[in-house]
Amino acid sequence: MEAAIVLGARVRGRTAPNPNVGCVIVREGRIIGRGWTQPGGRPHAEAMALADAGEAARGAHAFVTLEPCAHESPRGAACTDLLIEAGVAAVTVALTDPDPRTNGRGIARLRACGIAVDIGPGAEAAGRSMAGFLTRQRLGRPYVTLKLAMSLDGKIALPSGESRWITGEDARAHVHLERARADMILVGRGTYEADKPGLDVRLPGIEEWSPRRALLTRGEAVEGWTRLGSPEEVHGLAGVNDLLVEGGSATASAFLQADLVDRLLIYRAPILIGEGKSSIGYIGLTALADAHRRWALIDERRLGIDRLEVYERDRS
Amino acid sequence: MEAAIVLGARVRGRTAPNPNVGCVIVREGRIIGRGWTQPGGRPHAEAMALADAGEAARGAHAFVTLEPCAHESPRGAACTDLLIEAGVAAVTVALTDPDPRTNGRGIARLRACGIAVDIGPGAEAAGRSMAGFLTRQRLGRPYVTLKLAMSLDGKIALPSGESRWITGEDARAHVHLERARADMILVGRGTYEADKPGLDVRLPGIEEWSPRRALLTRGEAVEGWTRLGSPEEVHGLAGVNDLLVEGGSATASAFLQADLVDRLLIYRAPILIGEGKSSIGYIGLTALADAHRRWALIDERRLGIDRLEVYERDRS
Repeated sequence: MEAAIVLGARVRGRTAPNPNVGCVIVREGRIIGRGWTQPGGRPHAEAMALADAGEAARGAHAFVTLEPCAHESPRGAACTDLLIEAGVAAVTVALTDPDPRTNGRGIARLRACGIAVDIGPGAEAAGRSMAGFLTRQRLGRPYVTLKLAMSLDGKIALPSGESRWITGEDARAHVHLERARADMILVGRGTYEADKPGLDVRLPGIEEWSPRRALLTRGEAVEGWTRLGSPEEVHGLAGVNDLLVEGGSATASAFLQADLVDRLLIYRAPILIGEGKSSIGYIGLTALADAHRRWALIDERRLGIDRLEVYERDRS
Repeated sequence: MEAAIVLGARVRGRTAPNPNVGCVIVREGRIIGRGWTQPGGRPHAEAMALADAGEAARGAHAFVTLEPCAHESPRGAACTDLLIEAGVAAVTVALTDPDPRTNGRGIARLRACGIAVDIGPGAEAAGRSMAGFLTRQRLGRPYVTLKLAMSLDGKIALPSGESRWITGEDARAHVHLERARADMILVGRGTYEADKPGLDVRLPGIEEWSPRRALLTRGEAVEGWTRLGSPEEVHGLAGVNDLLVEGGSATASAFLQADLVDRLLIYRAPILIGEGKSSIGYIGLTALADAHRRWALIDERRLGIDRLEVYERDRS
C-alpha cells in the first residue's frame, strides 16, 4: 500500500476535481502494474495499473489508496468493473470513497463477485495524501495550506520591508514543490502589489505544473487571477482540491481568523530579526487557553540550514 | 571521557569561579574512581576521583575534562602532584587549562614524570560543558544564555499582557533545570515589576541550587538583587561563570544588540498568537544579510508538546 500511496501523492495538485489515487498490482510478491490518476482525472489509477500489468493481473492482488469507483462515466468504465474483468483475486483499499456515487458500492460489488476485499491498511497516510479531495467531499471546500517563512522570532521582514531572503535556497525550492502539489495558490493584495509574484513552479521538469492563481482582495480582480473577496469564498472554488495560501501577513491572519487553515508549513531560518514585520497579525484570539490544542506537529525536517515544521489543524 | 564530561556537567552552576571539571579513573576497562569539582570549587575533580579509587589508582588511567592544575593553593595541593603521587600510568585530558597559572604546565609536569598524556578526546563536548569558565577566561565575562519562550509566530504574550501559559509543564521544568546550571539569573525591570519572579529552582532535591539574581535597570537597585545598568556590565560580574537572561523582551533585545548572547534557548509552544507582544524588539539590525550566519543549532528536543531549540552564537 505504501507504494500505491507514493504513486498517488506524486500527482497531488494535478487531478482535481478527481482524487489523486495510486494503485499497484502485486503478484507473487512482485509489483507487476503501477498506476496513478492522470492529469485532469482520467484514466483512473486502477485502469492504468491494470493496463500496465496486462494478462498477468488475473489472480493478482490490487492495492488502491481509494475505493474503486462504481459509477460509469462517458469518460471511461467504472474501475470496479475493470478489476472484475481483469480477474484480480484480491483488492486492498486504504479508504472508502466518500463520493456518494460510490461510497461502499465499489467494495460491495467486488465482494459480490467473489473478490476478497480488505479495507483500512495505510488509511492515515492515504488520507493525508488525498486530503484535498477528502476535504472537498467532507466540507465542500479545498484543503487549505498556509505557508509561512520566518525568522526564529517569527518575523517576515525588517521594518524597511526587506524580506529577501530570510530562508535559503533549499527551503525556497521546497516551496516550489508545494506549489506543484496545489491546484491553486493565493496571495493578498499587498503581496501582489509589492512582489507581482509569478507564483510559478521553478523546478526543472515540472515548470508546467504551475497552479492557478488567486488574489484575496476587497478591490478589483486582476486579469488571469481568480478573485476572492474573503476567505469564506473558498467554498465557491470549483475544481480546487488543494489551495496554498502564500501570504502576506494580512492574508494569513484572515484565513486563520476564519479557521480556514488545515495545515501550516513553517519554514524557519536560524536568524533573529527583532523589530520588524510579524508573520501574522490579529487572528481573533482573546485568551491564551483558546490558542492551545489546535495544531499538531506532523512532520519536520532540515532544509539546508533552515527547518520546515508541518502542523495540522486538530479538529477532533 | 564521556563519563567524565557527564560528571562535570552535572555541577555546572555550582563551582564558579572554578571550572566544573569531571574525572574518572579507569583500570582494566572498569571505572574505579569518580570525581567532580565540589561546590565552591574545592576539592577538585581529580582529588575526589583519586580518593574514590584509593590504592587501585596506581598504574590506572585518569580521564579529566580539563588539564589538571599545576599551582598549589592554600586550599589544596595541585592536582598534577596528586596524580603523580597516586602513580597513575596515563592521563587523558579533553582541554588544556587557559588559566595562566596552569596552561600546559600541568601536562608538561605529568610527562616529565613519565606519565603518558593524551590531549583532545571529547574536547568539543567538554568545551560546551565548561563554556562558562572558558568564556570567563577568554573574554573576561560570563557565558550568557538567553531564554525565550514563545508561540510558533514568535509572540510571548497577548496584547492584554496575558502570558500564562504559553509553554507547558515539561518546558517549564526544563527552565528550572537551566536555572540550576546558572550561577546568576537576570531579568529586566519590567519583568521584575510585573511578575516579582522568585527565579528559584523548583525541582525536587535541588531547590537549594537557586542561583543569584540580577536586575537590568537604569533605575535603583533592589535589595538582594545585583544591579546591572547595561548588558556591558556583565564584564564586572565576579564569580559568575554562567548567566541566564530570562527576559522580558526589552532585556533580551538589549543583550542581543550588545552581541552579548552566547546561547539561545527557544522553548516553542505549538500555538499561534497573532497580534501580541514580540519575543524581541530592536536589536540593531539594518540589513537582512547581517542576520545570517550568526546562530547554529546545536540541540533540539521535544518537551511534552513543546519544542526546545538550542542555538549557539557562531563567532568564527
